[in-house]
Amino acid sequence: MSAPLRIAVAGLGTVGAGVVEILQRQTTLLSARCNRDIMITAVSARDASRDRGVSLANIAWEENTVALASRKDVDVVVELIGGSEGVAKSLCETALAQGKHVVTANKALIAHHGGALAKLAEQRGIQLMFEAAVAGGIPVIKLMKQGLAANNYTKIVGILNGTCNFILSTMERTRRSFEDVLSEAQALGYAEADPSFDIDGVDAAHKLCILSALAFSTTPAIDGITIEGIRNISAADILAAEELGYRIRLIGITERTDRGIELRVYPALLPEGSPVSEVDGVYNAVHIFGDAVGDMFIEGRGAGRGATASAVIADIMEIARGDVSQPFLVPAASLATPVIVPMEDYESAYYVRLHVADHSGVLFALTRIFSAHDISVASFIQHAPKEATHGVDIILTTHTTLEKRMNHALREISAMPSILSSPCLIRIEE
Amino acid sequence: MSAPLRIAVAGLGTVGAGVVEILQRQTTLLSARCNRDIMITAVSARDASRDRGVSLANIAWEENTVALASRKDVDVVVELIGGSEGVAKSLCETALAQGKHVVTANKALIAHHGGALAKLAEQRGIQLMFEAAVAGGIPVIKLMKQGLAANNYTKIVGILNGTCNFILSTMERTRRSFEDVLSEAQALGYAEADPSFDIDGVDAAHKLCILSALAFSTTPAIDGITIEGIRNISAADILAAEELGYRIRLIGITERTDRGIELRVYPALLPEGSPVSEVDGVYNAVHIFGDAVGDMFIEGRGAGRGATASAVIADIMEIARGDVSQPFLVPAASLATPVIVPMEDYESAYYVRLHVADHSGVLFALTRIFSAHDISVASFIQHAPKEATHGVDIILTTHTTLEKRMNHALREISAMPSILSSPCLIRIEE
Repeated sequence: MSAPLRIAVAGLGTVGAGVVEILQRQTTLLSARCNRDIMITAVSARDASRDRGVSLANIAWEENTVALASRKDVDVVVELIGGSEGVAKSLCETALAQGKHVVTANKALIAHHGGALAKLAEQRGIQLMFEAAVAGGIPVIKLMKQGLAANNYTKIVGILNGTCNFILSTMERTRRSFEDVLSEAQALGYAEADPSFDIDGVDAAHKLCILSALAFSTTPAIDGITIEGIRNISAADILAAEELGYRIRLIGITERTDRGIELRVYPALLPEGSPVSEVDGVYNAVHIFGDAVGDMFIEGRGAGRGATASAVIADIMEIARGDVSQPFLVPAASLATPVIVPMEDYESAYYVRLHVADHSGVLFALTRIFSAHDISVASFIQHAPKEATHGVDIILTTHTTLEKRMNHALREISAMPSILSSPCLIRIEE
Repeated sequence: MSAPLRIAVAGLGTVGAGVVEILQRQTTLLSARCNRDIMITAVSARDASRDRGVSLANIAWEENTVALASRKDVDVVVELIGGSEGVAKSLCETALAQGKHVVTANKALIAHHGGALAKLAEQRGIQLMFEAAVAGGIPVIKLMKQGLAANNYTKIVGILNGTCNFILSTMERTRRSFEDVLSEAQALGYAEADPSFDIDGVDAAHKLCILSALAFSTTPAIDGITIEGIRNISAADILAAEELGYRIRLIGITERTDRGIELRVYPALLPEGSPVSEVDGVYNAVHIFGDAVGDMFIEGRGAGRGATASAVIADIMEIARGDVSQPFLVPAASLATPVIVPMEDYESAYYVRLHVADHSGVLFALTRIFSAHDISVASFIQHAPKEATHGVDIILTTHTTLEKRMNHALREISAMPSILSSPCLIRIEE
């Protein structure tokens, strides 16, 4: 058995404390599985006096977090601070420069600087691992780098944000409003006080660009991703989607096409019965398409202490076993800058909800505009209002068309005097 | 970049030809991902003259398959012959003894001799890998050894035989009989001319005992597994299950309990909406429970050229990258002989279908027997027969009880003169 692998943990929040706890509790099991002991030698966090429910006896405490990277008794730095810049970035860069392996759960850091950090790691012949950065309880990065490594990937569809999935699936089950369910999510600790990072799709986009980089051998590219969140999804949309045979979920898709890579995070209508549409609550899921394997679907907890700590420790165990891997599967120097297809060149089918004044001629005007833009309407719903209201909802779906055409049509429709509020547009993924 | 990794392939059936084809077609991709070239140097199969749609130019042909293991130009032997004894076993043993890595898709071999072969491999410091032996398109072995390696596993539930799943889910969808759908499966190539290995649950049991060994650090133990197949499942059972809110699937379960490991393959009623119950067609699925991750569900193709070749090549790539792993996660010398709980000590809820003479007193007699054995009936269905028949079906479900009690009760019930055929008993997994 080799000498013990010595770990420094930076950040002792929920996940950090979970990592310490499991490493201490499962010493025997983990040693047997790695054929090597794993020990924590140093930690750093904001408040040395806080009780985290784990013993830090015989573990050095560093006030200066970045100093962990230079300690002689550390082989692996585990970065659980978060944020794409600042201490987290300095710590990881310094650790790699000092020849220490880095394990991180930091999706923002990898989404923004993954390519450069991977180059640093490969130059030094050490490991940079970030399993916990994407879908904690689903080891999708290892799946793509190891279990499915023989595949030429063609497409990945993921439910990558548990907060949004909780909100949408709870709205569906309970018929409650977005605002109401968001408050519940905040009370349950599933959403932050400022929930924008989750509900505006940014968190999912960080994760998606990491999966896309792995799939298509590019540098992670957060800038080119089309991102739309779920703030505009109403109970009416969820009901109408159900009537049409669909469920609404916030999804991330990366897909290789002839014209480049399509990268997008948005709420979409998914056919009932499709694997991704059935994912409920705070679970995450990834549907991977590859030329050899066909398709493979995986579902698990997206976040939380145990699930994320599980991912972090799996990375540590790989390092303990001496496994070597290139952070983005192929050599970092060979990663291409992704050619991202502009959103207006996408093709999709669409769901549109229009709140219109309930008088004659509206439908005629609408169909004239769609027809003028060569957009073919696939289905149409208008229910007689149950009570006297200001207007009525018209819901229609289109056949596949160009996003550009749809934008032009909606611009004209929005200008119609009988349209009482901005149209709600949701893409349909079959 | 290291010297190329040299592969010998034994067996050029569907999977073998798929492995050769992908290794040749994806040379550039695989080299970049392994930072090393992979080349096939030798093959062996039954018929040298057969056209397999792949080029064997510049590849040595061995008439004597076992001789592959002794070739100087071979680093890895890929065994795709099958069978727990004979050539497959000799080839793997010889290869390991000669210090060559072994990659195999042979579930019977690993289920019967996995422990001994793993010891051989570890003594020589080489790799024995068998990802393709369980659920081809689902890299569940790597998931358990790598992505989820930090977990103390508690339970695994799998749909591990695509033939059975195709038959049961097609019976459900089409309301056709077992015999009828089996014939269709044979015509489609999903079932063999002699289908017993699949439909009697033996194939699923081989796979289950490999997953169980990995989960609970034991030697694979095919002998202690309770195995029941799907021959007795009728269209009536599938209909009744639906009425009760369940679907019938052939599942494999391994679970750690206070009294030992429960290992079982049988058809079961699963609640509609549970992930495993929703698996249709020839797909396989595995639901893994671990103390850190909670639960994780994965679904993919169970067999077929591409999916199985994908698993074989993933193993080869791990070896090419120089990754090291213990075949059963912990050192082979430390694998325990599993303590398997006898089936009669299991606790389960049950579904029972009885074909009875339609006269008074039967129901009273039945309930008296269940009551005498302290078995509590949970639900009961008897439909008025649509036409004059010899007898009627009575379907009942019980609350959780001991298998032993159920057996005693059914023995008494079977002896009743009004019972017209053997009772059909199916376990309910909530």
